[in-house]
Amino acid sequence: MKWSELKREPCSLARTVSVIGDRWTLLILRDCFLRVRRFEEFQARLGITRHLLADRLRKLVRAGVLRKVAYQARPQRFEYRLTDKGLDLFPVVLAIVHWGDVHMAGRRGRPLIHEHRACGHAFDPVHACSVCGEAVAARDVRVRPGPGAGRRGRDLARKAAEAG
Amino acid sequence: MKWSELKREPCSLARTVSVIGDRWTLLILRDCFLRVRRFEEFQARLGITRHLLADRLRKLVRAGVLRKVAYQARPQRFEYRLTDKGLDLFPVVLAIVHWGDVHMAGRRGRPLIHEHRACGHAFDPVHACSVCGEAVAARDVRVRPGPGAGRRGRDLARKAAEAG
Repeated sequence: MKWSELKREPCSLARTVSVIGDRWTLLILRDCFLRVRRFEEFQARLGITRHLLADRLRKLVRAGVLRKVAYQARPQRFEYRLTDKGLDLFPVVLAIVHWGDVHMAGRRGRPLIHEHRACGHAFDPVHACSVCGEAVAARDVRVRPGPGAGRRGRDLARKAAEAG
Repeated sequence: MKWSELKREPCSLARTVSVIGDRWTLLILRDCFLRVRRFEEFQARLGITRHLLADRLRKLVRAGVLRKVAYQARPQRFEYRLTDKGLDLFPVVLAIVHWGDVHMAGRRGRPLIHEHRACGHAFDPVHACSVCGEAVAARDVRVRPGPGAGRRGRDLARKAAEAG
């Protein structure tokens, strides 16, 4: 499989990875959720070349994850804001952060604490079932082919079901 | 910032991305959760070179995400299994898959359906607060520096708090 073919794979992970599966893109998204919006600010924080940053931002705009909003008229300047589609990536970012908090925090502990505004407490994300509300771990899940599976997706699901 | 410095960033996302932020690594992990375990099987499914696959598997073993288990003595053959640390990546994989299901499924619908064994229903993952149990979206979260923040982490948290 070539990387450029990923978007057409009958697999929602592969398709998402075709949008966010670049290392710098994930760091840019982290910063977006921390309210970083301007090109110079991203650049100062990430220390990557203007060329690389411009390329990644352009791809995120093209994918509908970020939108360019003018914040100044003369000279015209833009900032980058998460769209609703982009805001929906929050669980991905939070899950990645949480794994790092648990498994890679080191001696000094986690770098950032996340507080839930509604209840006012520091929290960890819990991944729950939308039907029964219970927490869901890997072993609690079974897969079967969906309508968009195709042959490859059906093979995948069968293989997973056989293995247990 | 150089890529090799990521592991030392006071940021749990950057640290996790240093382990899983490679495109092929994410596809390998997806397959692990679908019970793929053997080198030849990974290779047939992903269509990448033996060299690339061996490198990624070795890195995941070194990071403690996978372990090599002998399944045959003569000739000795190994398979790759998720460790507990690796199984903890399930919410990351599930969040990535879910975003693809919602935003990139296309006309035919999602390729795989996930069923929760405990309740027997097809489900979507809900990202909930570990304290109050309510669903948590990006706008519901405030960050503050944790014990491992360092100067950079404190800057991050202050910036995010100021912005909103």
